[in-house]
Amino acid sequence: MSIEKVAIIGLGLLGGSIGLAVKARAPGITTSGFDADPAVRAKATERGLTDNVHESAADAVRDADLVILCVPVGAMREAAAEIADVLPPRAIVSDVGSSKQSVAEDLAAALPGAIVIPAHPVAGTEQSGPEAGFATLFVNRWCILTPPAGADEAAVETLAEFWRKLGARIEIMDPQHHDLVLAVTSHIPHLIAYTIVGTASDLEEVTQGEVIKYSAGGFRDFTRIAASDPTMWRDVFLHNKVAVLEMLGRFTEDLTALQRAIRSGDGDTLHELFSRTRAIRRGIIQEGQDDPSPDFGRGH
Amino acid sequence: MSIEKVAIIGLGLLGGSIGLAVKARAPGITTSGFDADPAVRAKATERGLTDNVHESAADAVRDADLVILCVPVGAMREAAAEIADVLPPRAIVSDVGSSKQSVAEDLAAALPGAIVIPAHPVAGTEQSGPEAGFATLFVNRWCILTPPAGADEAAVETLAEFWRKLGARIEIMDPQHHDLVLAVTSHIPHLIAYTIVGTASDLEEVTQGEVIKYSAGGFRDFTRIAASDPTMWRDVFLHNKVAVLEMLGRFTEDLTALQRAIRSGDGDTLHELFSRTRAIRRGIIQEGQDDPSPDFGRGH
Repeated sequence: MSIEKVAIIGLGLLGGSIGLAVKARAPGITTSGFDADPAVRAKATERGLTDNVHESAADAVRDADLVILCVPVGAMREAAAEIADVLPPRAIVSDVGSSKQSVAEDLAAALPGAIVIPAHPVAGTEQSGPEAGFATLFVNRWCILTPPAGADEAAVETLAEFWRKLGARIEIMDPQHHDLVLAVTSHIPHLIAYTIVGTASDLEEVTQGEVIKYSAGGFRDFTRIAASDPTMWRDVFLHNKVAVLEMLGRFTEDLTALQRAIRSGDGDTLHELFSRTRAIRRGIIQEGQDDPSPDFGRGH
Repeated sequence: MSIEKVAIIGLGLLGGSIGLAVKARAPGITTSGFDADPAVRAKATERGLTDNVHESAADAVRDADLVILCVPVGAMREAAAEIADVLPPRAIVSDVGSSKQSVAEDLAAALPGAIVIPAHPVAGTEQSGPEAGFATLFVNRWCILTPPAGADEAAVETLAEFWRKLGARIEIMDPQHHDLVLAVTSHIPHLIAYTIVGTASDLEEVTQGEVIKYSAGGFRDFTRIAASDPTMWRDVFLHNKVAVLEMLGRFTEDLTALQRAIRSGDGDTLHELFSRTRAIRRGIIQEGQDDPSPDFGRGH
């Protein structure tokens, strides 16, 4: 199996970056694109995110070997239904969604008999829309494939090879385990960031102007994540509910323990934790998953 | 009043950056330094963090017009006591600590009759120690002065002018209000970051290797803050207990409300908050308090 044409449904940060990455790193592959929003289609045409931008999802997937749905996870089922009648029978259908159990169910229901291999490239920025994508987004990032039981091995390898061409590293995972791992490395961090930014906005004793002025004390880091796409993130929390609530419970227990340590003046407990957490940062930098410069290399 | 010689007690990230900033931006001012750790003194001499590095705090403050204590807030009282007998009577004593009520009390107790003007430059990185400082750390950052009631206005203005020379912007604030503002813009963000990194490290179902590999989903941002100096941060939480516990209570209430929204599938509540939090990010970028590039300008 080889991929000669990939159809990208949804031309925001992820879809646009896939199109640009194919152009830059896999020029033998043709791309076609569609987005439900006409303004996004116009911008995608202007930036050349895909070789062709079509007026319907059905037109975009014609003759495609690989279809990648790049829409919020709450819109997967509808997006799949739109292409069900015209999907080439041997095409692989995949996605980039951040919850994998829900996507597997939705795509299987909407596309009975199709070759469905859900995927999740763990990459992004806080920006969204057709102007946000860039060709190197996936370089050295992990792309997790969650093939269903009994999936065609050749199709899985074909999809893996596609992502490798875009610069990604591949991991195969059970969808349930994926959802648990991502709850802790992505979903809970976003939920916490949205919460503290909301808390800070609503205070009466501290003005928004003060929050903004003194944000360099650490708060500003959280505002980046809390500027992420609201629809995408609403859908993630609604579609990975079980794992998110489970991990949120663990986080809250640990926060309560620290609260008690602060109240009782237990400096040893605080110091022990604060020393231990440095090791994870070192591991992330050693694995090439973050910028080693102080402060992410922000200009000073 | 004018400052001809500044003594810096504690030559880590903050103390070292003050020394380098004076050298770069206020070359008319002489600097002397001291650190309780001989290895830090040796490194400070090697990097030239101050014009002279002394073997005792008492030696460093001789003839100083301004003494800045750059030690963890839990060490302020002892550091002040060490210079009490030799402090020039007209010298201004200040600091860089992140809690201001506790520092005001500790310095007043240790230095009766001295001119004490506590201060807090809201600037830093996750790195610490004598190799971490750099001359531009304070440029365009806010430095909050919290003069006690009845403080000498000329002394306050002299200190403000010193910080302006280093590139900082000045705000005068009541120490109690400072502690509330910084609890939300700095202390709670650090506490949350330490907590989630600790939670992720302790899971049985998800390995540390997985947490590291998939950290680009958002988690890695928190690991930067959670790599900050453990002693400094232990002291902040123990010395700003009241405001931290108050703000932690607000955060926990808001998180519980979001938890309920997720459990009940209330997408509107999630979407409304996630849309609202973007405005704060825009304000921070407009005010020049963060890098406007996607992902803080990390290399992609």
